[in-house]
Amino acid sequence: SFSRGMQTVTLIPGDGIGPEISSAVMKIFETAKAPIRWEERNVTAIKGPGGRWMIPPDAKESMDKSKIGLKGPLKTPIAAGHPSMNLLLRKTFDLYANVRPCISIEGYKTPYTDVNLVTIRENTEGEYSGIEHVIVDGVVQSIKLITEDASRRIAEYAFEYARNNQRNSVTAVHKANIMRMSDGLFLRKCREVAENYKDIKFTEMYLDTVCLNMVQDPTQFDVLVMPNLYGDILSDLCAGLIGGLGVTPSGNIGANGVAIFESVHGTAPDIAGLDLANPTALLLSAVMMLRHMGLHDYGNKIQTACFDTIRDKKVLTKDLGGNSKCSEFTADICRRIQDLD
Amino acid sequence: SFSRGMQTVTLIPGDGIGPEISSAVMKIFETAKAPIRWEERNVTAIKGPGGRWMIPPDAKESMDKSKIGLKGPLKTPIAAGHPSMNLLLRKTFDLYANVRPCISIEGYKTPYTDVNLVTIRENTEGEYSGIEHVIVDGVVQSIKLITEDASRRIAEYAFEYARNNQRNSVTAVHKANIMRMSDGLFLRKCREVAENYKDIKFTEMYLDTVCLNMVQDPTQFDVLVMPNLYGDILSDLCAGLIGGLGVTPSGNIGANGVAIFESVHGTAPDIAGLDLANPTALLLSAVMMLRHMGLHDYGNKIQTACFDTIRDKKVLTKDLGGNSKCSEFTADICRRIQDLD
Ligand SMILES: CC(C)[C@H](C(=O)O)[C@@H](O)C(=O)O
Ligand SMILES: CC(C)[C@H](C(=O)O)[C@@H](O)C(=O)O
Repeated sequence: SFSRGMQTVTLIPGDGIGPEISSAVMKIFETAKAPIRWEERNVTAIKGPGGRWMIPPDAKESMDKSKIGLKGPLKTPIAAGHPSMNLLLRKTFDLYANVRPCISIEGYKTPYTDVNLVTIRENTEGEYSGIEHVIVDGVVQSIKLITEDASRRIAEYAFEYARNNQRNSVTAVHKANIMRMSDGLFLRKCREVAENYKDIKFTEMYLDTVCLNMVQDPTQFDVLVMPNLYGDILSDLCAGLIGGLGVTPSGNIGANGVAIFESVHGTAPDIAGLDLANPTALLLSAVMMLRHMGLHDYGNKIQTACFDTIRDKKVLTKDLGGNSKCSEFTADICRRIQDLD
Repeated sequence: SFSRGMQTVTLIPGDGIGPEISSAVMKIFETAKAPIRWEERNVTAIKGPGGRWMIPPDAKESMDKSKIGLKGPLKTPIAAGHPSMNLLLRKTFDLYANVRPCISIEGYKTPYTDVNLVTIRENTEGEYSGIEHVIVDGVVQSIKLITEDASRRIAEYAFEYARNNQRNSVTAVHKANIMRMSDGLFLRKCREVAENYKDIKFTEMYLDTVCLNMVQDPTQFDVLVMPNLYGDILSDLCAGLIGGLGVTPSGNIGANGVAIFESVHGTAPDIAGLDLANPTALLLSAVMMLRHMGLHDYGNKIQTACFDTIRDKKVLTKDLGGNSKCSEFTADICRRIQDLD
């Protein structure tokens, strides 16, 4: 893959610390000679014709062409009715699978070691349908929507992911003892898809049981697949096990080959522009992106350099327990990449 | 309180290891001279007139009279349409608040120390409404129902609990960024009730953020209040932090002064009858019960003895890391109670 031509990636630097950590990633990619051409775009929603919120057309066009995006943190503007940017992007590109590998980082101490799991979250329906009603005064209902198609699609994605990433088992996470029809449908589709992947072990587990077992021994889990809200919860819980959102990568896989990789931490306005931010989450998301694009060698090289810098503990940003600037942390990773060559 | 007369408690020993751990608790209570008279009842659901599942009338009558129950684990019989016994009990007695103190136990090693929090779960509505429909083939909806009354009631319970138990803060856990109307209503009621408890600090937090922060540093939390499903998840997660369901007490508070305290672990059929079970969760639930009844001195004495036995590490059941039988563990606690006198 080192001999391929350049591929274009839409870069959405984002707000707050977004531009700094994006620059860090670009610098590291350049040092690694990763064959990526960045096309920078802003995605802050605008009001389109008919008053519907949409992402700016030039951002949409870039994504439609490049198919691959890398995105920093976005603040949701406080305008009446302004949608969450995350939700709008998921919708615009039908990003149906949120994938979060949670792997313990050597040298970065948390209460857990040897965590090595992946949460795969259905990203388009469930509790996120947005359908709610007042039934009578003081009584509100929210509708959770589960479809056969979306359930089968996410289950298939999870099993394919497991197979392509040398993982042994997929656990479907559910509350079908309570939501017998909706989670029951989700679970049934997982079971059906499992039939086609005899090489992957399939198990089912209640969400509450998963949470309990997860904090007692996360090493028992491998790939986990689940409806939207459960994924929202479990993916953050698991990020906590390995050190938080500052070191956890994330990828959103969409229909038609589109995918957006992103750091899921906030914009950290308090330290924005001060060269103090930690670019690890965005960098590891960019590594996921390289692998997704088939550029494994570049991804591995960058990841090795990043983990070496963290393990070495000499040049760390403040949130990682050090005193170094973002630029120094970035330079240390770049130096290691050059040494690897 | 040592001078009060006897009070009746309905004892539901339950299935599997239920009878053994119930006997252990009775023995310990007798040794502590706790002024409790047990009225033993079986609650396995029967089909009542009209075909509706109900708990046996003599169990219902006992609870209606005593108001206080202590319950071991129940297996849900595998009969077509047989309801979960837990759900049936919650419904029968309108047990609207599930209360779970999660407090680190000295000497019982987990990845965390100094956990000291209480989850308070709304127990009657939300995602547990049981209302589900097939919209069209392959599309299912489940309805989450949030009411003003139930939200206010659980919020009031949480703040009263905080005040009466010398706790400083209440955190409302929600996803009102997604379920704006339903979780929004829940949150609004929490805010309103908070106004009447200026002595208690009130905060709001997204469920995903709580999960992430919880596994990173649970000591930042105090009392947490939340809708049904979130409580199901968080209460088990938090139990995991202190050692699992085998050491976590639970109480269900109902309308009209009714309350049922219970161990929330399973029936463990594999070790039932072998004198190997760990009675700690049921015992600590019984301690919660004593405090609920105003019998603090008895509760404290029993809890001290139980924690001393665990800290001492000499007489522990297998799941706690020892080799002792349930009866030996129980005897060690009894000996300490006698020594305390
Ligand atoms: C910001 C919010 C809409 C979002 C969610 O709940 O999905 C966030 O928690 C996430 O996981 O991306
Ligand atoms: C058994 C099941 C109905 C129950 C629930 O989901 O509430 C259990 O998980 C609990 O927490 O008591």
